[in-house]
Amino acid sequence: MRTEHDFLGEMNVPDDVYYGVQTMRAMENFHITGEHLDPDFIKAMAIVKKAAALANMDTGRLNPAIGNALVQAASEVIEGKWNDQFPVDPIQGGAGTSVNMNMNEVLCNRALEITGKAKGRYDLVSPNNHANMAQSTNDVFPTSIKVCLVIKGQKLMEALKELEGGLDEKSDEFRDVLKMGRTHLQDAVPITLGQEMGAYASAVRRGRKRIERTLEGVRVINMGGTAVGTGLNAEPAYIKAVAAKLSMLTGEIFVTARNLIDMTNNTDIFSDVSGSMKTTALMLIKMANDFRLMASGPRCGLNELKLPARQPGSSIMPGKVNPVMAEVLDQTCYQVIGNDTVISLAVENGQFELNVMEPVMAFNLFHSMQYLTNAIHAFINNLLNGLEANRSQCQSWVDHSVGIVTALLPHIGYERSAMLAKEAYTTGRPIRDIILEHDYLTKEQVDCILSPDEMTKPGIAGKRALDRSYAKQQKISG
Amino acid sequence: MRTEHDFLGEMNVPDDVYYGVQTMRAMENFHITGEHLDPDFIKAMAIVKKAAALANMDTGRLNPAIGNALVQAASEVIEGKWNDQFPVDPIQGGAGTSVNMNMNEVLCNRALEITGKAKGRYDLVSPNNHANMAQSTNDVFPTSIKVCLVIKGQKLMEALKELEGGLDEKSDEFRDVLKMGRTHLQDAVPITLGQEMGAYASAVRRGRKRIERTLEGVRVINMGGTAVGTGLNAEPAYIKAVAAKLSMLTGEIFVTARNLIDMTNNTDIFSDVSGSMKTTALMLIKMANDFRLMASGPRCGLNELKLPARQPGSSIMPGKVNPVMAEVLDQTCYQVIGNDTVISLAVENGQFELNVMEPVMAFNLFHSMQYLTNAIHAFINNLLNGLEANRSQCQSWVDHSVGIVTALLPHIGYERSAMLAKEAYTTGRPIRDIILEHDYLTKEQVDCILSPDEMTKPGIAGKRALDRSYAKQQKISG
Amino acid sequence: MRTEHDFLGEMNVPDDVYYGVQTMRAMENFHITGEHLDPDFIKAMAIVKKAAALANMDTGRLNPAIGNALVQAASEVIEGKWNDQFPVDPIQGGAGTSVNMNMNEVLCNRALEITGKAKGRYDLVSPNNHANMAQSTNDVFPTSIKVCLVIKGQKLMEALKELEGGLDEKSDEFRDVLKMGRTHLQDAVPITLGQEMGAYASAVRRGRKRIERTLEGVRVINMGGTAVGTGLNAEPAYIKAVAAKLSMLTGEIFVTARNLIDMTNNTDIFSDVSGSMKTTALMLIKMANDFRLMASGPRCGLNELKLPARQPGSSIMPGKVNPVMAEVLDQTCYQVIGNDTVISLAVENGQFELNVMEPVMAFNLFHSMQYLTNAIHAFINNLLNGLEANRSQCQSWVDHSVGIVTALLPHIGYERSAMLAKEAYTTGRPIRDIILEHDYLTKEQVDCILSPDEMTKPGIAGKRALDRSYAKQQKISG
Amino acid sequence: MRTEHDFLGEMNVPDDVYYGVQTMRAMENFHITGEHLDPDFIKAMAIVKKAAALANMDTGRLNPAIGNALVQAASEVIEGKWNDQFPVDPIQGGAGTSVNMNMNEVLCNRALEITGKAKGRYDLVSPNNHANMAQSTNDVFPTSIKVCLVIKGQKLMEALKELEGGLDEKSDEFRDVLKMGRTHLQDAVPITLGQEMGAYASAVRRGRKRIERTLEGVRVINMGGTAVGTGLNAEPAYIKAVAAKLSMLTGEIFVTARNLIDMTNNTDIFSDVSGSMKTTALMLIKMANDFRLMASGPRCGLNELKLPARQPGSSIMPGKVNPVMAEVLDQTCYQVIGNDTVISLAVENGQFELNVMEPVMAFNLFHSMQYLTNAIHAFINNLLNGLEANRSQCQSWVDHSVGIVTALLPHIGYERSAMLAKEAYTTGRPIRDIILEHDYLTKEQVDCILSPDEMTKPGIAGKRALDRSYAKQQKISG
Repeated sequence: MRTEHDFLGEMNVPDDVYYGVQTMRAMENFHITGEHLDPDFIKAMAIVKKAAALANMDTGRLNPAIGNALVQAASEVIEGKWNDQFPVDPIQGGAGTSVNMNMNEVLCNRALEITGKAKGRYDLVSPNNHANMAQSTNDVFPTSIKVCLVIKGQKLMEALKELEGGLDEKSDEFRDVLKMGRTHLQDAVPITLGQEMGAYASAVRRGRKRIERTLEGVRVINMGGTAVGTGLNAEPAYIKAVAAKLSMLTGEIFVTARNLIDMTNNTDIFSDVSGSMKTTALMLIKMANDFRLMASGPRCGLNELKLPARQPGSSIMPGKVNPVMAEVLDQTCYQVIGNDTVISLAVENGQFELNVMEPVMAFNLFHSMQYLTNAIHAFINNLLNGLEANRSQCQSWVDHSVGIVTALLPHIGYERSAMLAKEAYTTGRPIRDIILEHDYLTKEQVDCILSPDEMTKPGIAGKRALDRSYAKQQKISG
Repeated sequence: MRTEHDFLGEMNVPDDVYYGVQTMRAMENFHITGEHLDPDFIKAMAIVKKAAALANMDTGRLNPAIGNALVQAASEVIEGKWNDQFPVDPIQGGAGTSVNMNMNEVLCNRALEITGKAKGRYDLVSPNNHANMAQSTNDVFPTSIKVCLVIKGQKLMEALKELEGGLDEKSDEFRDVLKMGRTHLQDAVPITLGQEMGAYASAVRRGRKRIERTLEGVRVINMGGTAVGTGLNAEPAYIKAVAAKLSMLTGEIFVTARNLIDMTNNTDIFSDVSGSMKTTALMLIKMANDFRLMASGPRCGLNELKLPARQPGSSIMPGKVNPVMAEVLDQTCYQVIGNDTVISLAVENGQFELNVMEPVMAFNLFHSMQYLTNAIHAFINNLLNGLEANRSQCQSWVDHSVGIVTALLPHIGYERSAMLAKEAYTTGRPIRDIILEHDYLTKEQVDCILSPDEMTKPGIAGKRALDRSYAKQQKISG
Repeated sequence: MRTEHDFLGEMNVPDDVYYGVQTMRAMENFHITGEHLDPDFIKAMAIVKKAAALANMDTGRLNPAIGNALVQAASEVIEGKWNDQFPVDPIQGGAGTSVNMNMNEVLCNRALEITGKAKGRYDLVSPNNHANMAQSTNDVFPTSIKVCLVIKGQKLMEALKELEGGLDEKSDEFRDVLKMGRTHLQDAVPITLGQEMGAYASAVRRGRKRIERTLEGVRVINMGGTAVGTGLNAEPAYIKAVAAKLSMLTGEIFVTARNLIDMTNNTDIFSDVSGSMKTTALMLIKMANDFRLMASGPRCGLNELKLPARQPGSSIMPGKVNPVMAEVLDQTCYQVIGNDTVISLAVENGQFELNVMEPVMAFNLFHSMQYLTNAIHAFINNLLNGLEANRSQCQSWVDHSVGIVTALLPHIGYERSAMLAKEAYTTGRPIRDIILEHDYLTKEQVDCILSPDEMTKPGIAGKRALDRSYAKQQKISG
Repeated sequence: MRTEHDFLGEMNVPDDVYYGVQTMRAMENFHITGEHLDPDFIKAMAIVKKAAALANMDTGRLNPAIGNALVQAASEVIEGKWNDQFPVDPIQGGAGTSVNMNMNEVLCNRALEITGKAKGRYDLVSPNNHANMAQSTNDVFPTSIKVCLVIKGQKLMEALKELEGGLDEKSDEFRDVLKMGRTHLQDAVPITLGQEMGAYASAVRRGRKRIERTLEGVRVINMGGTAVGTGLNAEPAYIKAVAAKLSMLTGEIFVTARNLIDMTNNTDIFSDVSGSMKTTALMLIKMANDFRLMASGPRCGLNELKLPARQPGSSIMPGKVNPVMAEVLDQTCYQVIGNDTVISLAVENGQFELNVMEPVMAFNLFHSMQYLTNAIHAFINNLLNGLEANRSQCQSWVDHSVGIVTALLPHIGYERSAMLAKEAYTTGRPIRDIILEHDYLTKEQVDCILSPDEMTKPGIAGKRALDRSYAKQQKISG
């Protein structure tokens, strides 16, 4: 055990740990979730610390002997070597001061060790004066969240791209699978399964771009704002340098906010990022639910899609297989939406120069990104890649449908079409038979209008083929 | 025009209106929603004011000449005679002071008129000294919300009771309609449509009782707490009397809170009431969505239920009819859920002796209750009462299903049953045929096990009939 | 009364109204909110209808005699002449079919009247065949929402710009008002009130740009997608023309979606727009709450800001004035956040080719935009424009504070500074006296470091002035 | 490695683990959160399994040799001995089938081991036929959630009781600390700090009772409903026995639902429990924020409360101490509120005979309960127990306040009182001096009215003492 102190007094710290007195206090204070800090977040904060140390050496304020040791320590943390030295609970009071001081203490003690000094000799390398030089939790903590969001964001973008690609492939594979389109869960007009898959791909693409767009906002950082955004204790040269160092270390663009006070006070960017994930989650739920509906049955449902059988579906019902991958995607998306509620509440509750609720924002943002990335990969690997169409069932539904009568609208008008449809529903007979019984159109015309190709693309179905007779029809439909 | 003043100065007030200077200020300040106060809320507050005036006369503090005129004015407001005299916007700052003063002004000016005095003669009958005697907005406003919730709550309870009754009737009507039960949207085991309707009725009943239970909480009022709940300016005799008067006037029980300070500071009861409506809304959504699924088709869906055709379903698709009443119930429920978010945010944001966000709580509580009541009535009248089962389709699904194999589980074990199911799915053949091909059970046994009645009630299907052979089967299933 | 019919049967329609049978059915079916359609929405849909009629005339499909009458009728609706002819409830089933048919009926009956024909003669001018030509509710309704969002969005953008400008002015006016910065509601380091106002302005600017950015998305429309997005019954030439006509009529850019199916199925754009309003609302709440805190008191609070007295604050507490405009902004923002919940739920619940929950999305989007616009204007006019700083009180807090010790950090280190602070807190004495008692710094140095100007801008406070002595200090701070 | 199979095929299972093939499949399928099942949940489900095995032995259906081994295995799991044998991710598809089968496999393999058989010999002891006898995931899983909620609920109730007690103690300790009451964050009328603490205690008590009340609902279970609630494969005698066994094993009352179908289909109870935690969280936030406001300063804020210094508050601002325990309580409460959103979304999305989203409900319910319990304990231990009043500061605010003028209202009327207040605010002079300058009341009368005791309890302050002069005053106040 070694003894450390802060202005509240002394504490014993196990000699083999790199964290110190302030981390110990946080451990005592915050036992909430039992979870650990996200490794990507530890990495991100170490990168920020390394950038700050490099910038402080550039301005000449930080002694290179100390600075280089801190940089080496930070590099080791970045490599994941000391992840077990961050025991503080992710949900904590103090706006992240405990995380920042945990990091400062680990860096200092490791730097002391590197330079052959005893751990705890903060008179030589100080968590507050050196590791935290020109910094405050109030700029380091949100900046680290942002760096972490860039890291995690890339993984999410890759997952979404892969999903998009997979859906595009299925769109191609299923391009000639005619199926019944449905609105209000009621039979509408035909569409192809390929068109549906293409629409999902298009929606996922938009979702991805939307998240990417909000992630642009996290590149605007407040390093140098220090305590309240005014930049007290941070020299202009340092402020300029630290963003550059951060960009260099990450290979990503980070820029200093024009208004450091605003950027220190306000956390709206986290609501924006979370909101874009929420909106994407809403689309993914819609897609997953469509898959669940299309795979419903197999005997007593739509039975249009065959999902890969991943596990027995019931402890009591033999042979049952459930759409478990779609269900887990749904649930993950609910979690993302609920996490967005947490983030909204936290963002709302800032006061004056700081929003002290940042820890819970980070906790939820990281969860949302990680869970969503995982769930999308699971969905691709365990469902999408093995997805098959039940072509005969799809065709069969169309063959029995009445909704194709809509294609007749430009030819014979709404009212006549409606009466044909009504007759079909009342009698239960095939709509095509009923159409032909009436003398509105010849068999050739009907075939021409009701061709799958004509009915699933823009235009008046059968118009070209009906060219000559069209003028006459128009009169009828008047 | 007459001239009125408050401590901020003078204003001209149209001579024909009963409201006064403070209402005028509120009209200038708050132009947010453009909506008007809920008539039930105006009524509720007038009842509260009448109760206060009666109590103040009882204690001898309020001059009966003034008091009786105020009571008469309040009675007229209760009758709905002066609803057009309440122009303040429902979303307003000031924690309801503008509504309270609007009411105080209307009551005083009408009382002045009744007693043959000129409007605006507040030196004779004063909004603050007489109409508001022993009161504060901070007790009158939340108490009025509570009285209004009791009024509106009764209408909602009636609607829910009627829904419950309607579902119970359908449960009876459809008690012998065998249909496929579904879990995960996948075929499970048979159930009757009557059982499903009974389950909805049961859920609605629980929802109703839950709301009723939370409404018990609104009967605990803080009248007499005045400004901060300490009761300054409200005599103990008055505090006792006012709750009794309120109970007498409404025919409902209202009791004074044990801790008036708590009851003035905290608005959790509004979150509780809203939350119980939210939870009920979640169940109604589930039910409405089941109806939409069961009515899906009619040709390319489950087609188990026939909903009354209420309106043409499409401007372009002739003959289409949609489940519009279920859809509007869904949407109303979403509104109730979103309103609960507003209420949560408002309840969260109290400080010290008051939560000033009460106006937006009231606005959303009243909307939720009113909309939900309306939507339930619309659902009953336009959907439930005309609901029909498609009996043949329901039976047909069951006949083709494989899931009935579950009933064999106690007889031949899970593994054998699963293999039978798998064979059925792979070959597409009827499960009954496959069962009989194997020598696990005789035809008589199978008929006995797979009888509809046996499969839809607790117990081992066919157990009694199989009695003698049962011991043998157990050995097989080992 | 005239008699009209649709495929469900006949109904009597009052002869003086322009709407018809389908509107009547909707009135019977949906009595939920009692509210009316937003006038901007009626206008927006009429613009869409006009664009469609013009495009249909361009392609030669729509008879010019009919088309021109419809265009004239639409123009009259756009002018607001027939707002009373839209009685359908905003929350409705049927995905907006009732609104679309209400519009189709009004346009047709007015067109019939214009051309000297009797209302109801749909054989001459048909709601489905002519007013709805090449259209479906499924493209007209969401496109009309989008046009309405552009209209309403402009008003909101103007309100936000004005707020931003007002805050910028206050930033300038209060640029030399030194005040205590606070983090965790605890004394931090000095800042100016002008800096704070500038930060609010900056945040509002970002919020405005974020909403503007999401509004770009509503310019992508699905006109021509018709029933399920495949474009059945809509000729390619029409599809091209209708977006152009819409752009021409509105003076705003609208473009046809690349993937009309996706754009018909998915409603994520509405979540995106709502989400950006939500995020802005979160910032506005933070600002409004800061104003409430700074105006707290006046005797027993921070008392740093003087808000204009808008109305007496209490029915019982004489002379009390409350920050009602900040409170109403808060509540309006809660409503916006709750409305976002509704929209999320609705967006989540699409199936297959359509999301039928669009009516409740529109209802909440329009409310959020309108209420927020109104509340911002009220805040500007009734609070911000009359806002004054309590300069002496601001200065007085700083004079008594201890937090300025932070400026000493680079000069004497964290630990010594902390001990000075602790001594100040313990003894209750002024920090400056305590600093001077210790021999770390001379009086000149202290004055130099603690100058307001130095402490509120980036850099080491007093560094330049301390130049010569700096090396020495660094040694001390080790 | 041993080889196991299910109807989807064979898999290798490490020989040293007790789980089997279906658990392995779930591990492959669901890698979402990386978290483990809550130990209380594992325990709860083992209790349910034990109850089922005992009930099945009672009915004579389960062979005692097998049954007793399963019971012993379950007892070991209940003791926490095999917690490492539950590797499935808490967020999963399949409605909990993977958890149920994980448990069934562990119980069987351990039972096999106990009886001297090899793991994997499911022909002897079968996960589906024996461990799951008369059960389905659809009754076991929700029932296990309910048992877990009872277990965790007790811990939460204890935490809330302790909080309540602590606040009651502080109420007593601070009963004579007069302080300024505030509404709208503006000075209102005096109150005592003890009264405020008592109000918090009262609110917490109501919150606790509300949660307790909703927890009554989780005692209604659906054991015996099996697959869809009809009770297929569960004998009536078993259904009766299993609830009794569960009650016996837990020492808590559990009863079989009247309508097992409803109870299997609907999950509203989980929204109800979560909602009651949400409402309680809203009150805790309000309390925590009041503490933060009262502890604000210490020099530039209200400074009425002294919170224990738990850790240095800043990495850059020396000597700063922050209200970290109140902040962490706030954030935990936000998490509870966001989790409620997740639960709402999940509860909403059931279909037909099951709500497959139960796993994410359980995940969030358990988190909410655990986190809230932890945060309350942290708040009590690290804040409340060491809480001190700053008595002199509290008194000082009251002495400088104007709001006490409210006590004069019944004596001299609202208007005169308002003028006195206005004069005080305008001149900045003490209100008492101004009162005395006017001849409304004598010094003795004023002293009598403005006594702390009189102003903080129900009644007209000073009424009794003023008895003789009261009639005269009334005339003035008219």
